[in-house]
Amino acid sequence: MTPALEDLFAVLRFPSISTDSNHASDVRACAQWYVDKFKSMGLSVELCETAKHPIVLAKNEPVSGRKTVLIYGHYDVQPVDPIELWDSAPFEPVIKDGKIWARGATDNKGQHMAHLLGVEETIKEKGELPVNLIFLLEGEEEIGSPNLPGFLEERKEELACDVIAVSDTGMVAKGIPTLGYGLRGITCCEVKVNGPDKDLHSGLYGGAVANPATAAAQLIASLHDSEGKVAVEGFYDEVEPLADWEREMWSQVPGVSESDLLEVTGSPAVFGEAGFSSAERLWARPTCEVNGMWGGYQGEGSKTVLPSYACFKLSCRLVPDQEPEVIIARVQKHLEAHLPTGVTMEFTPGHSGKAYVADPHSEAGKAAQEALEEVFGRPPVLIREGGSIPIIQSMKEILGTDTLMLGLALPDCQIHSPNENFTVENFEAGIRLSKVLLEKLGA
Amino acid sequence: MTPALEDLFAVLRFPSISTDSNHASDVRACAQWYVDKFKSMGLSVELCETAKHPIVLAKNEPVSGRKTVLIYGHYDVQPVDPIELWDSAPFEPVIKDGKIWARGATDNKGQHMAHLLGVEETIKEKGELPVNLIFLLEGEEEIGSPNLPGFLEERKEELACDVIAVSDTGMVAKGIPTLGYGLRGITCCEVKVNGPDKDLHSGLYGGAVANPATAAAQLIASLHDSEGKVAVEGFYDEVEPLADWEREMWSQVPGVSESDLLEVTGSPAVFGEAGFSSAERLWARPTCEVNGMWGGYQGEGSKTVLPSYACFKLSCRLVPDQEPEVIIARVQKHLEAHLPTGVTMEFTPGHSGKAYVADPHSEAGKAAQEALEEVFGRPPVLIREGGSIPIIQSMKEILGTDTLMLGLALPDCQIHSPNENFTVENFEAGIRLSKVLLEKLGA
Repeated sequence: MTPALEDLFAVLRFPSISTDSNHASDVRACAQWYVDKFKSMGLSVELCETAKHPIVLAKNEPVSGRKTVLIYGHYDVQPVDPIELWDSAPFEPVIKDGKIWARGATDNKGQHMAHLLGVEETIKEKGELPVNLIFLLEGEEEIGSPNLPGFLEERKEELACDVIAVSDTGMVAKGIPTLGYGLRGITCCEVKVNGPDKDLHSGLYGGAVANPATAAAQLIASLHDSEGKVAVEGFYDEVEPLADWEREMWSQVPGVSESDLLEVTGSPAVFGEAGFSSAERLWARPTCEVNGMWGGYQGEGSKTVLPSYACFKLSCRLVPDQEPEVIIARVQKHLEAHLPTGVTMEFTPGHSGKAYVADPHSEAGKAAQEALEEVFGRPPVLIREGGSIPIIQSMKEILGTDTLMLGLALPDCQIHSPNENFTVENFEAGIRLSKVLLEKLGA
Repeated sequence: MTPALEDLFAVLRFPSISTDSNHASDVRACAQWYVDKFKSMGLSVELCETAKHPIVLAKNEPVSGRKTVLIYGHYDVQPVDPIELWDSAPFEPVIKDGKIWARGATDNKGQHMAHLLGVEETIKEKGELPVNLIFLLEGEEEIGSPNLPGFLEERKEELACDVIAVSDTGMVAKGIPTLGYGLRGITCCEVKVNGPDKDLHSGLYGGAVANPATAAAQLIASLHDSEGKVAVEGFYDEVEPLADWEREMWSQVPGVSESDLLEVTGSPAVFGEAGFSSAERLWARPTCEVNGMWGGYQGEGSKTVLPSYACFKLSCRLVPDQEPEVIIARVQKHLEAHLPTGVTMEFTPGHSGKAYVADPHSEAGKAAQEALEEVFGRPPVLIREGGSIPIIQSMKEILGTDTLMLGLALPDCQIHSPNENFTVENFEAGIRLSKVLLEKLGA
């Protein structure tokens, strides 16, 4: 195994699940690994405390007149359940079939480690970097980065930079370099529907009081029409229409056809908002998805109860120019208006972040396109992404800087799912990309 | 503690959960306790094997010319979750505030133990019983008694009897003796809605493939109209209308007003099929209830997945003359017809049993009314029950015998829920009732 892979395996072994308070010490231990690593590379490094998980901030000695580049990544990961569907333990990385299998392999440890190791190689080879570098790693991306905006505000001057580079997005297909210039935003909530103050015998009481599971299902069902459109009043009011060049380019981007989508997702059919292609549905249209729902008896056999309550978690993916607070308020209003008789509802808003778009034809955008072409041997496609990286919008708002999204994830990398993986090939290409990119940005 | 309570506590300590295969040995150990007890009372007893949990069958020495009475009960119990809502351990019975708290206290160990102990007292006091007695205890009632009908068929002649007595139903209110003459039937199913072959990132794929949790919710929502009626085609086709005398009597039965129902269930409001009183909704109208549903992430915080599948369990309560097989087939057809685009469905039928009605004014019915009046000091009300005891219908069909339903459960006894309980008062009244009833039936 190469030293680079050994370093990647070391960070993948930390179960740094930020949403689960039982893993807080694992998150911290992971941060400490990066502190030690950056020190060994000769960078100055600081473990910055936040209200929850720490931020790791590393810098080289700045030289006046050079471009300042900020590389962002996150060392926290998603939960691992359903654990029984993993073919190998999520925090015991293995290489098989040319891929590294582990939670966080692609999202995001594998991708930012490529940058870190590219920086390390450049320093070893040249003794210095061609740019002033700020390397920022946070531990709260998977819970919506609650403490990063405050941190950026506080250190606004120290973090001032010319361009930001982030590899936390995808390539449209294996071998097709991809520059992302847009992301969907997100807004979340959890809803609890309350009925009787305990589970009831469905024979003794069924029929005479409302069933909260039925009521919760009716609420969820009310969120969409039969054509896949979100039925919340005003949901689409501020949605920016697609530009003609985007529809044109996206119709030719490989990897997002209906058959590609069926193969990658294993779904029995594609389905979505009428009048849009799959790429448009994924990259430029907002959604309202159930991430989880539960109520009553879920065990073996039957238990004939009328459940006391039922819950569901929703997340809406947002596009320019939807405001998260406005959208979640409309969802709440919709649910309150559609609440069935005989139950009450508790609504808890969750994390949120705005959508983002930038100009892929800026000076830094062109440097990124050249670096991608040099490493992958063909010009990149220009796309938006369906996922959310709220911090990119925050960095734009607070630092005033645009972000180059240099995706290294492949469509079957299974992020957020069992059997997450990252190809060794893209990991190594990412190391080369980081070296070339800093060279071109510094030129 | 009295010897009677000691015996009840002994049986309540067995976690005889019939639906959970991990508890099979507990179910058997509980059956063995009854075998030993009946032997100590001088009855002949047999532990009868079935394909799953055994039946305990006890008899006295039959005397020609006497009435034969079969007393039925079940020694299996419901699961205990959500365990965290119990105030004391479900299988460590305690007496507090005049009540016995334990899983099975009312359903059904406490109620059939009253009969068993009444029989024991009569034998001790008089040296013999006034009737030929058959005491039958099964261990599969909570999973739909799959093996009892076959057992009844096999032993049809041996089990021939003049009347059957069962205490597995309720009193309408504390102190109001209650003779039940009808029960709702039941038919169950479990539905799994399948989408992608793994959980997906809701950002990367949300909007372009169907969400199985949304689809499951849409299916559940399709089962009722806004007035609380079941929307399955043909669902009410065979429903027997209520007789005028029933509507009249039930309008005066205490304990089933809207305010009673709110107090007992802790629901925020009553809700049910338009055009019927709560008593009518509970005792003479069919239902379609979600007993449980689940899909996606249910843990702390958020996990922005598009779930691979979602499931729900349904049970329909049935009334005369609905056939379980016909109704569940109509439900399946409805679900198939309403299946949203982009998902597939697996439908698994569960246990079922027909509804039951008898004449409460028969000779045995009058004896039961007299016994209830003697023990409780006022004439009983005549009602049907909302719950299902499919075996009562089977005993009618196979043995040709009607059943006296002598309910001892109180409305707040929490059967099938956390904190199940049985009042010491009703337990002791049940012992007296059993003695008086056998006397009157034998006269």
